[in-house]
Amino acid sequence: MDKTLDYIMAKPPKNAITPTRAEDFPEWYQQVIKGADLAENSETRGCMVIKPWGFALWEGVKEYLDKRFKETGHENAYFPLLIPIAHLEKEAEHAEGFATECAVVTHHRLEAKKDEATGKTKMIPSGKLTEPYVIRPTSETIIGSAFSRWVESYRDLPLLINQWANVMRWEMRTRLFLRTAEFLWQEGHTAHATKDEAQAETKLIHTLYQEFLNEVLAIPVIAGEKTEAERFPGAENTYTVEAMVQDKKAIQAGTSHYLGQNFAKAQEISFLDKDNTTKHAHTTSWGVSTRLIGTLIMAHSDDDGLVLPPRIAPQQVVIIPVTPKEESKDAIIDACQALASTLRSKVEYGGSTVRVKVDTRELQGGAKKWEWVKKGVPVRIEIGPRDLESRKVCLARRDQPSSEKSFLDREDVINDLESILAEIQENLLNRATTLRDENIEECTDLSVFEKHWGGDENAQPSWLLCPWNGTKEEEETLAKKHKITIRCIPEELQKGASSCILTGDNTSQWVLWARSY
Amino acid sequence: MDKTLDYIMAKPPKNAITPTRAEDFPEWYQQVIKGADLAENSETRGCMVIKPWGFALWEGVKEYLDKRFKETGHENAYFPLLIPIAHLEKEAEHAEGFATECAVVTHHRLEAKKDEATGKTKMIPSGKLTEPYVIRPTSETIIGSAFSRWVESYRDLPLLINQWANVMRWEMRTRLFLRTAEFLWQEGHTAHATKDEAQAETKLIHTLYQEFLNEVLAIPVIAGEKTEAERFPGAENTYTVEAMVQDKKAIQAGTSHYLGQNFAKAQEISFLDKDNTTKHAHTTSWGVSTRLIGTLIMAHSDDDGLVLPPRIAPQQVVIIPVTPKEESKDAIIDACQALASTLRSKVEYGGSTVRVKVDTRELQGGAKKWEWVKKGVPVRIEIGPRDLESRKVCLARRDQPSSEKSFLDREDVINDLESILAEIQENLLNRATTLRDENIEECTDLSVFEKHWGGDENAQPSWLLCPWNGTKEEEETLAKKHKITIRCIPEELQKGASSCILTGDNTSQWVLWARSY
Repeated sequence: MDKTLDYIMAKPPKNAITPTRAEDFPEWYQQVIKGADLAENSETRGCMVIKPWGFALWEGVKEYLDKRFKETGHENAYFPLLIPIAHLEKEAEHAEGFATECAVVTHHRLEAKKDEATGKTKMIPSGKLTEPYVIRPTSETIIGSAFSRWVESYRDLPLLINQWANVMRWEMRTRLFLRTAEFLWQEGHTAHATKDEAQAETKLIHTLYQEFLNEVLAIPVIAGEKTEAERFPGAENTYTVEAMVQDKKAIQAGTSHYLGQNFAKAQEISFLDKDNTTKHAHTTSWGVSTRLIGTLIMAHSDDDGLVLPPRIAPQQVVIIPVTPKEESKDAIIDACQALASTLRSKVEYGGSTVRVKVDTRELQGGAKKWEWVKKGVPVRIEIGPRDLESRKVCLARRDQPSSEKSFLDREDVINDLESILAEIQENLLNRATTLRDENIEECTDLSVFEKHWGGDENAQPSWLLCPWNGTKEEEETLAKKHKITIRCIPEELQKGASSCILTGDNTSQWVLWARSY
Repeated sequence: MDKTLDYIMAKPPKNAITPTRAEDFPEWYQQVIKGADLAENSETRGCMVIKPWGFALWEGVKEYLDKRFKETGHENAYFPLLIPIAHLEKEAEHAEGFATECAVVTHHRLEAKKDEATGKTKMIPSGKLTEPYVIRPTSETIIGSAFSRWVESYRDLPLLINQWANVMRWEMRTRLFLRTAEFLWQEGHTAHATKDEAQAETKLIHTLYQEFLNEVLAIPVIAGEKTEAERFPGAENTYTVEAMVQDKKAIQAGTSHYLGQNFAKAQEISFLDKDNTTKHAHTTSWGVSTRLIGTLIMAHSDDDGLVLPPRIAPQQVVIIPVTPKEESKDAIIDACQALASTLRSKVEYGGSTVRVKVDTRELQGGAKKWEWVKKGVPVRIEIGPRDLESRKVCLARRDQPSSEKSFLDREDVINDLESILAEIQENLLNRATTLRDENIEECTDLSVFEKHWGGDENAQPSWLLCPWNGTKEEEETLAKKHKITIRCIPEELQKGASSCILTGDNTSQWVLWARSY
């Protein structure tokens, strides 16, 4: 092996991430986040700092969805962070649903006070508010209140509003991206003249979320409706897209709610209709959050770290100059920059110019390589001294084992890059689809069901597709017993007439039971 | 006058906005916001709802600045909304500067409690926190704390981070956009190995803000440094861009702070330098906020409502079909749509495709026209029945009196639109520059100075450019007496050696005194 190659292939560790998925999935998840420099815990209880590489993923989510929302007639707006408690109280079920996890603002300034014991000056809350506020856990109530001012006639409908914002729910146990006290999200809120229109809106967004997960994040979701027990507090229907990640747990990746006239009545969103009568509007709300980033990580990453589908990768290609000798260094860096700018000008993928970075940092080649592996960049290209004349490059794909490389002519890279990226995207979707399809089992027998969830604590069981017509209470009892939930009544996978796994009654409704994040 | 024309020119009111600027500037401002549907007050004390047209202006600001920040090497990230009080305490001057206006979170849930007197159930704060948090009034402390973890060696520097976020300052008197308890902003935070580099960064952003205000918002700012009295709490230098709006008051439109090593020392942001010694970093911070929208409104709008420079207008052209007769309606709407799509495909302005909207709503033509006038759309095009054959359109520019119109061939609109938009943009900048230049006066005599500020309460006086070497205390006394402040030590406009207007001492430093928002 010549010096260059040796330099390129600096002995890899067995895996870039310790532990592996098989050894300890939750800890592996934390280490992937750390290795890819996505986020970290902060001194604020349960709140994370989203670092640049992690935030760039969220920017990718925003860019795509914002465009789709606007194309479908929605407009962005911004509503207050703080909600007067009286507002929250208006919709009782909703208030109850969020009351146990609200950050409450009670004072409006700080006062310096000397601590008699320590002699130190401390800042203490001062200026008590007569009416406290909660930091929005979601904005139905404050936005509904604005809607009641904005809507007067049928001409004002539909009202199609979206907000990109931070929200806060005081969760007791938190996990980076998946469950944090503060998180970022978009919340759509719409008002319509009729039930049909509002339901069509809910379904439109439900479909849009599916397409996004599928096409951009390469995550094949199961789409369906939530049961009453799992519905959004105050909603009449909640539609969900459920992802299966590599430990076979479910993650609710996006929900759309048809709120009926519940919120409209509580908040007086009424309008004069064409027939000259006053009616309450039908409203919807829908959202996805930074939780999507957690889902993305758990769906594709491997024991070497993050794996990013090209469509969402902040950089799709990284070019690393391999410069063991000072004399050829400049020429190699020039060749890398030249290739990058050719790729940027000639290659399009997913509707935009390919995103290419040349990493010229003064850092040992092996360390640099492993950094990009852990960051999940789809395509890694290296150019070394011997490649200058041959006009070849060494290309590695993140969806293949890290030892696999191909040596390509530069012209071929330019011609093939688009299809290489498309192949990686497809490959990741296929893998995730296989995982999902292999881990959903039909089950019509309660004893098999009970045994399924009672096995080895560490081995995550498959999802079970079961006939179900139990009550809300029966569902909650079973859920509590096995630490499972009905993820949804899937739109596909319905198997026709059968008997409910619990009650034995005839039913043709099949539901998906699973463990979840 | 034929029916069509009559229809187009539906008798205008004297002015679309009541009162006029001359009658009552503050109330005019509120009415411009209302007329353009930009924002409104909410039930949350001091917090506004930013409505779609207002939010689209902020999206324009974000899009431009975000691109520039990224081009100059900055990355976006996200930090917690809540700051532990202990963090705020670390930099004493900084803590003191914000302590009197902080929203404080003291509890983490709500509990339903029956009110004995009324019998009603009320939600009251519960789950008291041992350590309260403040909602970020700015993020130097929490970001500094992250930087102290991220920075170890000179290789980690410079660290160039930006955050788009909401912040909260419990202001007593609020005014839409200009001063609200919650506002949206970007805050840049950077760390550098040397003072020179940090100062260069501060100046780079200072210049970038000037360019943005000038080129995009058509607002000619005065750039300069703040005096000690007006500096950001904890900073060594604060640079500002100051805008003069139509009532001649000043608005601080964007600031960049060189923080020296103050925050780095308070928060232990230190690094091992090339010379193997440990040093504290030099940090900067800088920001612009939704206050820019208030500045924009006050800089250009007239007695008919909002006036938008084309570069920032969410829609640059609105095309209104004038359809007095049912039989020609479809053909007119088709002609409007056809013109819109030709303009979108053929005309570029300010680096992107021209933004054109066809307003096909069922609404009386006059009402529709005035709505767009009040929303400030730069170019309004009307097509009526007689224009179908002649292939002409009626075009009105928002920077000209609302009675002025020109009748152009459609081909000419396509060919000339880019230059029409450029002309409007330039025209607005020129007007604002004239206003500014005509309202800055040199003053070297204290008695003239005193008289200048003591005149008619309603007539806003010009800014005064004065030689100044007074102390911080002398400045504050004078400021309080006349309700004025030194806006900055301007970079230009320096007039050389003179005597301080207050102390009479020799000085070559000239400062700008003004009333401000």
